[in-house]
Amino acid sequence: MAIHHALSGEMIDIRPLGNTIRATQSGTLYKTQHLEVFRMVLFAGKEIPEHKVVGESTVRCLEDSVEFSIGTTRDILRAGDLRCLAGGVTQSLLAIEDSSVLVTLLLHGA
Amino acid sequence: MAIHHALSGEMIDIRPLGNTIRATQSGTLYKTQHLEVFRMVLFAGKEIPEHKVVGESTVRCLEDSVEFSIGTTRDILRAGDLRCLAGGVTQSLLAIEDSSVLVTLLLHGA
Repeated sequence: MAIHHALSGEMIDIRPLGNTIRATQSGTLYKTQHLEVFRMVLFAGKEIPEHKVVGESTVRCLEDSVEFSIGTTRDILRAGDLRCLAGGVTQSLLAIEDSSVLVTLLLHGA
Repeated sequence: MAIHHALSGEMIDIRPLGNTIRATQSGTLYKTQHLEVFRMVLFAGKEIPEHKVVGESTVRCLEDSVEFSIGTTRDILRAGDLRCLAGGVTQSLLAIEDSSVLVTLLLHGA
Protein backbone atom coordinates (compact mmCIF):
# COMPACT_ATOMS: atom_id res chain seq x y z
CA MET A 1 0.00 0.00 0.00
CA ALA A 2 1.39 3.39 -0.92
CA ILE A 3 2.20 5.56 2.08
CA HIS A 4 0.18 8.73 2.33
CA HIS A 5 2.18 11.94 1.91
CA ALA A 6 0.88 14.71 4.10
CA LEU A 7 -0.09 18.09 2.74
CA SER A 8 1.16 21.37 4.19
CA GLY A 9 -0.48 21.83 7.58
CA GLU A 10 -1.73 18.27 7.90
CA MET A 11 -1.26 16.61 11.28
CA ILE A 12 1.22 13.73 11.23
CA ASP A 13 1.41 11.24 14.08
CA ILE A 14 5.02 10.38 14.92
CA ARG A 15 4.39 8.85 18.33
CA PRO A 16 6.27 5.63 19.06
CA LEU A 17 4.81 2.74 17.07
CA GLY A 18 5.13 0.29 19.96
CA ASN A 19 3.43 -3.02 19.24
CA THR A 20 2.65 -2.05 15.65
CA ILE A 21 6.28 -1.39 14.69
CA ARG A 22 6.72 -4.78 12.99
CA ALA A 23 3.72 -4.04 10.78
CA THR A 24 4.96 -0.58 9.79
CA GLN A 25 7.05 0.26 6.77
CA SER A 26 9.60 3.01 6.48
CA GLY A 27 8.21 5.79 4.35
CA THR A 28 8.15 9.41 3.33
CA LEU A 29 5.66 11.46 5.34
CA TYR A 30 6.09 14.81 3.58
CA LYS A 31 7.97 15.88 0.50
CA THR A 32 8.43 19.07 -1.45
CA GLN A 33 11.08 20.36 -3.82
CA HIS A 34 13.36 21.36 -0.95
CA LEU A 35 12.35 19.21 2.00
CA GLU A 36 11.71 15.55 2.72
CA VAL A 37 10.57 14.12 6.04
CA PHE A 38 10.55 10.38 6.44
CA ARG A 39 10.24 7.80 9.18
CA MET A 40 12.68 4.96 9.06
CA VAL A 41 11.62 1.77 10.83
CA LEU A 42 14.56 -0.44 11.73
CA PHE A 43 14.09 -3.88 13.23
CA ALA A 44 16.65 -5.01 15.81
CA GLY A 45 19.92 -5.88 14.09
CA LYS A 46 19.08 -4.05 10.88
CA GLU A 47 22.02 -2.12 9.49
CA ILE A 48 22.16 0.80 7.11
CA PRO A 49 25.75 0.56 5.86
CA GLU A 50 28.07 3.52 5.46
CA HIS A 51 26.66 6.15 3.13
CA LYS A 52 26.72 9.89 2.57
CA VAL A 53 23.70 12.14 2.49
CA VAL A 54 24.19 14.99 0.03
CA GLY A 55 22.19 17.69 1.79
CA GLU A 56 21.93 18.75 5.41
CA SER A 57 19.75 16.55 7.58
CA THR A 58 18.38 16.01 11.05
CA VAL A 59 17.85 12.60 12.61
CA ARG A 60 15.69 12.14 15.70
CA CYS A 61 15.21 8.84 17.43
CA LEU A 62 11.48 8.36 18.02
CA GLU A 63 11.67 5.08 19.93
CA ASP A 64 14.22 2.70 21.34
CA SER A 65 17.79 3.04 20.19
CA VAL A 66 20.10 2.86 17.22
CA GLU A 67 23.86 2.89 16.98
CA PHE A 68 24.68 5.89 14.84
CA SER A 69 28.20 6.10 13.49
CA ILE A 70 29.83 9.10 11.89
CA GLY A 71 33.06 7.95 10.30
CA THR A 72 34.65 5.77 12.98
CA THR A 73 32.83 7.39 15.91
CA ARG A 74 29.95 5.32 17.29
CA ASP A 75 27.21 6.78 19.46
CA ILE A 76 23.89 5.51 20.67
CA LEU A 77 20.90 7.59 19.58
CA ARG A 78 18.03 7.02 22.02
CA ALA A 79 14.45 8.21 21.97
CA GLY A 80 14.56 11.97 22.44
CA ASP A 81 18.01 12.41 20.95
CA LEU A 82 18.47 14.60 17.89
CA ARG A 83 21.42 14.92 15.57
CA CYS A 84 21.82 17.62 12.93
CA LEU A 85 24.28 16.87 10.18
CA ALA A 86 26.09 18.83 7.53
CA GLY A 87 25.84 17.48 4.00
CA GLY A 88 28.35 14.87 2.85
CA VAL A 89 28.94 13.23 6.24
CA THR A 90 29.76 9.50 6.11
CA GLN A 91 27.33 7.75 8.41
CA SER A 92 25.84 4.36 9.23
CA LEU A 93 23.08 3.03 11.46
CA LEU A 94 22.52 -0.19 13.35
CA ALA A 95 19.27 -0.84 15.22
CA ILE A 96 19.85 -2.12 18.73
CA GLU A 97 16.14 -2.75 19.33
CA ASP A 98 13.17 -2.40 17.02
CA SER A 99 13.43 1.36 16.51
CA SER A 100 12.08 4.23 14.50
CA VAL A 101 13.80 7.47 13.57
CA LEU A 102 12.55 10.61 11.92
CA VAL A 103 14.79 12.02 9.20
CA THR A 104 14.45 15.54 7.83
CA LEU A 105 16.40 16.08 4.64
CA LEU A 106 17.22 19.29 2.82
CA LEU A 107 17.11 18.55 -0.88
CA HIS A 108 18.87 21.64 -2.16
CA GLY A 109 22.25 19.90 -2.05
CA ALA A 110 25.20 20.14 0.30
CA MET B 1 23.39 32.82 29.36
CA ALA B 2 23.86 32.23 25.67
CA ILE B 3 22.39 28.97 24.46
CA HIS B 4 24.88 26.53 23.05
CA HIS B 5 24.53 25.87 19.32
CA ALA B 6 25.33 22.28 18.44
CA LEU B 7 27.88 21.36 15.82
CA SER B 8 27.18 18.93 12.99
CA GLY B 9 26.87 15.46 14.49
CA GLU B 10 26.57 16.62 18.09
CA MET B 11 23.92 14.89 20.20
CA ILE B 12 21.05 17.19 21.20
CA ASP B 13 18.64 16.23 23.96
CA ILE B 14 15.07 17.12 23.02
CA ARG B 15 13.32 14.99 25.63
CA PRO B 16 10.43 16.62 27.47
CA LEU B 17 11.70 19.22 29.93
CA GLY B 18 9.18 18.25 32.61
CA ASN B 19 9.84 19.98 35.93
CA THR B 20 12.62 22.12 34.46
CA ILE B 21 10.44 23.70 31.78
CA ARG B 22 9.88 26.93 33.73
CA ALA B 23 13.64 27.38 34.02
CA THR B 24 14.27 26.80 30.32
CA GLN B 25 14.43 29.45 27.64
CA SER B 26 13.44 29.09 24.04
CA GLY B 27 16.52 28.93 21.89
CA THR B 28 18.26 27.90 18.71
CA LEU B 29 19.86 24.46 18.97
CA TYR B 30 21.48 24.30 15.52
CA LYS B 31 21.91 26.83 12.77
CA THR B 32 23.56 26.93 9.39
CA GLN B 33 23.08 29.02 6.28
CA HIS B 34 20.10 26.93 5.16
CA LEU B 35 18.71 25.34 8.29
CA GLU B 36 17.69 26.41 11.77
CA VAL B 37 16.43 24.10 14.51
CA PHE B 38 15.04 25.67 17.64
CA ARG B 39 13.06 24.67 20.70
CA MET B 40 10.27 27.01 21.68
CA VAL B 41 9.21 26.88 25.31
CA LEU B 42 5.70 28.22 25.84
CA PHE B 43 4.19 28.61 29.29
CA ALA B 44 0.47 27.92 29.64
CA GLY B 45 -1.53 30.78 28.14
CA LYS B 46 1.39 32.16 26.14
CA GLU B 47 0.36 33.22 22.65
CA ILE B 48 2.42 33.69 19.51
CA PRO B 49 0.12 35.94 17.49
CA GLU B 50 -0.57 35.50 13.79
CA HIS B 51 2.58 35.59 11.71
CA LYS B 52 4.02 34.16 8.51
CA VAL B 53 7.18 32.11 8.25
CA VAL B 54 8.96 32.80 4.97
CA GLY B 55 10.51 29.39 4.38
CA GLU B 56 9.19 25.87 4.76
CA SER B 57 9.10 24.55 8.30
CA THR B 58 8.23 21.60 10.48
CA VAL B 59 6.75 21.93 13.96
CA ARG B 60 6.76 19.03 16.37
CA CYS B 61 5.18 19.13 19.80
CA LEU B 62 7.67 17.72 22.30
CA GLU B 63 5.51 17.93 25.39
CA ASP B 64 1.99 18.81 26.41
CA SER B 65 -0.15 20.69 23.94
CA VAL B 66 -0.51 23.90 21.99
CA GLU B 67 -3.37 25.25 19.95
CA PHE B 68 -1.95 25.71 16.48
CA SER B 69 -4.00 27.80 14.09
CA ILE B 70 -3.51 28.07 10.36
CA GLY B 71 -5.63 30.93 9.12
CA THR B 72 -8.97 30.42 10.86
CA THR B 73 -8.52 26.66 11.38
CA ARG B 74 -7.61 25.70 14.95
CA ASP B 75 -6.07 22.36 15.86
CA ILE B 76 -4.46 20.98 18.96
CA LEU B 77 -0.87 19.84 18.51
CA ARG B 78 -0.03 17.27 21.19
CA ALA B 79 3.24 15.57 22.09
CA GLY B 80 4.11 13.32 19.14
CA ASP B 81 2.26 15.38 16.56
CA LEU B 82 4.18 16.88 13.67
CA ARG B 83 3.12 19.49 11.16
CA CYS B 84 5.03 20.37 8.00
CA LEU B 85 4.26 23.74 6.50
CA ALA B 86 4.82 25.43 3.18
CA GLY B 87 6.41 28.87 3.33
CA GLY B 88 4.18 31.91 3.77
CA VAL B 89 1.43 30.22 5.79
CA THR B 90 -0.35 32.48 8.31
CA GLN B 91 -0.16 30.76 11.68
CA SER B 92 -0.47 31.35 15.40
CA LEU B 93 0.15 29.36 18.57
CA LEU B 94 -1.41 29.31 22.02
CA ALA B 95 0.01 27.11 24.77
CA ILE B 96 -2.69 25.14 26.58
CA GLU B 97 -0.25 23.80 29.16
CA ASP B 98 3.43 24.53 29.72
CA SER B 99 4.68 23.11 26.43
CA SER B 100 7.72 22.83 24.22
CA VAL B 101 7.85 22.47 20.46
CA LEU B 102 10.70 21.80 18.08
CA VAL B 103 10.77 23.97 14.98
CA THR B 104 12.87 23.16 11.92
CA LEU B 105 13.13 26.07 9.54
CA LEU B 106 14.45 26.17 5.98
CA LEU B 107 16.19 29.47 5.50
CA HIS B 108 16.38 29.50 1.71
CA GLY B 109 13.10 31.38 1.40
CA ALA B 110 9.61 30.30 0.43
